[in-house]
Amino acid sequence: MSKMLEEIRQQPVALERTLADSLRLAERLKRRLERRRPRTILLAARGTSDNAALFGRYLLEIATGIPVSLAAPSVYTLYGARMKLDDVLVVAISQSGESTDINVVLERAREQGSMAIGITNESASAMAKLAEYTFLVKAGREKSVAATKTYTGQLLCLYLLAYALGGGVRLDALARLPEWTAQALRLEDKIAERAERYRFMERAVVVGRGLVYANAFEFALKLMETCYVVAERFSSADFLHGPIAMVERAFPAFLFTPSGVTWPTMREMLAKLEHLKADTLIITDRSNGEARALGKSVLAVPARLARKSALPDEVYTPIPYIVPAQLFAARLAAEKGLDPDQPRTLTKVTRTL
Amino acid sequence: MSKMLEEIRQQPVALERTLADSLRLAERLKRRLERRRPRTILLAARGTSDNAALFGRYLLEIATGIPVSLAAPSVYTLYGARMKLDDVLVVAISQSGESTDINVVLERAREQGSMAIGITNESASAMAKLAEYTFLVKAGREKSVAATKTYTGQLLCLYLLAYALGGGVRLDALARLPEWTAQALRLEDKIAERAERYRFMERAVVVGRGLVYANAFEFALKLMETCYVVAERFSSADFLHGPIAMVERAFPAFLFTPSGVTWPTMREMLAKLEHLKADTLIITDRSNGEARALGKSVLAVPARLARKSALPDEVYTPIPYIVPAQLFAARLAAEKGLDPDQPRTLTKVTRTL
Repeated sequence: MSKMLEEIRQQPVALERTLADSLRLAERLKRRLERRRPRTILLAARGTSDNAALFGRYLLEIATGIPVSLAAPSVYTLYGARMKLDDVLVVAISQSGESTDINVVLERAREQGSMAIGITNESASAMAKLAEYTFLVKAGREKSVAATKTYTGQLLCLYLLAYALGGGVRLDALARLPEWTAQALRLEDKIAERAERYRFMERAVVVGRGLVYANAFEFALKLMETCYVVAERFSSADFLHGPIAMVERAFPAFLFTPSGVTWPTMREMLAKLEHLKADTLIITDRSNGEARALGKSVLAVPARLARKSALPDEVYTPIPYIVPAQLFAARLAAEKGLDPDQPRTLTKVTRTL
Repeated sequence: MSKMLEEIRQQPVALERTLADSLRLAERLKRRLERRRPRTILLAARGTSDNAALFGRYLLEIATGIPVSLAAPSVYTLYGARMKLDDVLVVAISQSGESTDINVVLERAREQGSMAIGITNESASAMAKLAEYTFLVKAGREKSVAATKTYTGQLLCLYLLAYALGGGVRLDALARLPEWTAQALRLEDKIAERAERYRFMERAVVVGRGLVYANAFEFALKLMETCYVVAERFSSADFLHGPIAMVERAFPAFLFTPSGVTWPTMREMLAKLEHLKADTLIITDRSNGEARALGKSVLAVPARLARKSALPDEVYTPIPYIVPAQLFAARLAAEKGLDPDQPRTLTKVTRTL
């Protein structure tokens, strides 16, 4: 069995450990942030961690109303711009904590006395030393080059950060995430069976919107690095603006379709794809009966909706929703005779100038 | 001849008109922004305009040090987040000025008394009415669904905005852009000849970094919507983090490689692609002799570098650099027997909920 598959299965335990470890830090940050609120939040990351940051930008803006910027690291490193970071909350995310360019952003923040938070798996890393506060993803060493348990752990830490900013995130809902993730893992047999028909897939699109938009980036990245599929990632709005022109009969499309405010535009898009006779697979949950009825090929996870909450219905869906996508990529890699733990050309820690 | 090709060729004249029309506004804004500096800049756009915004984020951060956020429109429209936009400079970009979701972001800015700037081709549009100041892209009506002269016009307006923010942009350099664009257009015959060998291309990657990163997005979008090529777009840093795994022999890669601080990482990437026996075409300029010697297939534009300036060497390259890419997409569409003015499934104005 691939390490990737092993690590996907470790996620319920990893999430539970991460939550237990980080609750106290979240409460401490909450007290500090009540006294001094940032005017802007800057998230800095690369690769899978950058996909987690993309989730963070939606969650944090929706929950707090504070504008979020996703850092372009080269502005700091190559161009050496003198960024004005006073009253900016800087959050750096890296599995290894050794991404040199991401750490430069943290350094600039510390120099200017801005609050600097790290999210990393490694307590002894350069990032953990640089950051004023560090959320530790307690996922255990990630051995597969393809990050999986790191991504969901980082998402969990971002929920805790939103909680610390007074953003209406409920700790009791977070406590249910390991269980929902465990339930999503039960789709593995169904997915293994389904993956076979994609053996010859060479290109695809993955679409999501809003809070699950980041999942589209993450699923596409997994398809690219473990299955060598040229997988494009889009929001439904951008996709309909132009790239939909490339969809022809049997073109494979993967959609994340939670209930809630994004569903009408995803439904419209699903109808267009059906009309174009594209090959669609949708990842949804049991609450979205309409999606389950519309899609020809459906993977439904057990995510519960956050009804009667200050936050959107689907706010707690991204973690359970990425699980079928991870399983799909790992199983498709096996189907194609590839080793997802050692993709050609790649190494685990990437240092960027 | 396609309207797309006609409109590509109109760019020198369109740029000249846009610059002449907007200089006074830029000076007026400069005086106003000297008195009151924004703490954050929010750019809101979709499609090609969003690619222009991506250029804007690099230029404005490098030139001014003010953090820039690229708006996620659904946060405003679908999620109805109560964004705190005080002291935020909001810049909305839309060819038609009728993108409903982008205009919602402008509305939120006006309601909170924030400064709101529009960049649009249409002086009578909803955007021009909503914005406090409007930069008009004087490119004439854009008839092709594939935007070209709009993109370069929007880039020019973003240079003027950086100038207004005191960002070291030189008006005499901007005045040379129409001429450099005209010189880049002279590559058309060479490109037409080159396009033939790409007739059967179905997938590709386009890579750029820093100030020309947005061009990678724009080139990829043109390849998707006019040639139906599944074209991925990446920064070299992100590409080396994972997606490079999908590159096999003869995989087509297009690279923007200006001189300056991004060149060493692009050179490293070019070497990796050569090692993988990928099929590379690079767009560079006459100053980068090393790139011209390394690349097997090279399109060199006549961009001049901004030596001895406060800004990076390659700051004025993005407009001339996109011209060969636009010509390539238009010529490849013709080569594939497609009509770039009317891609299947698309219409010119996209209204998004």
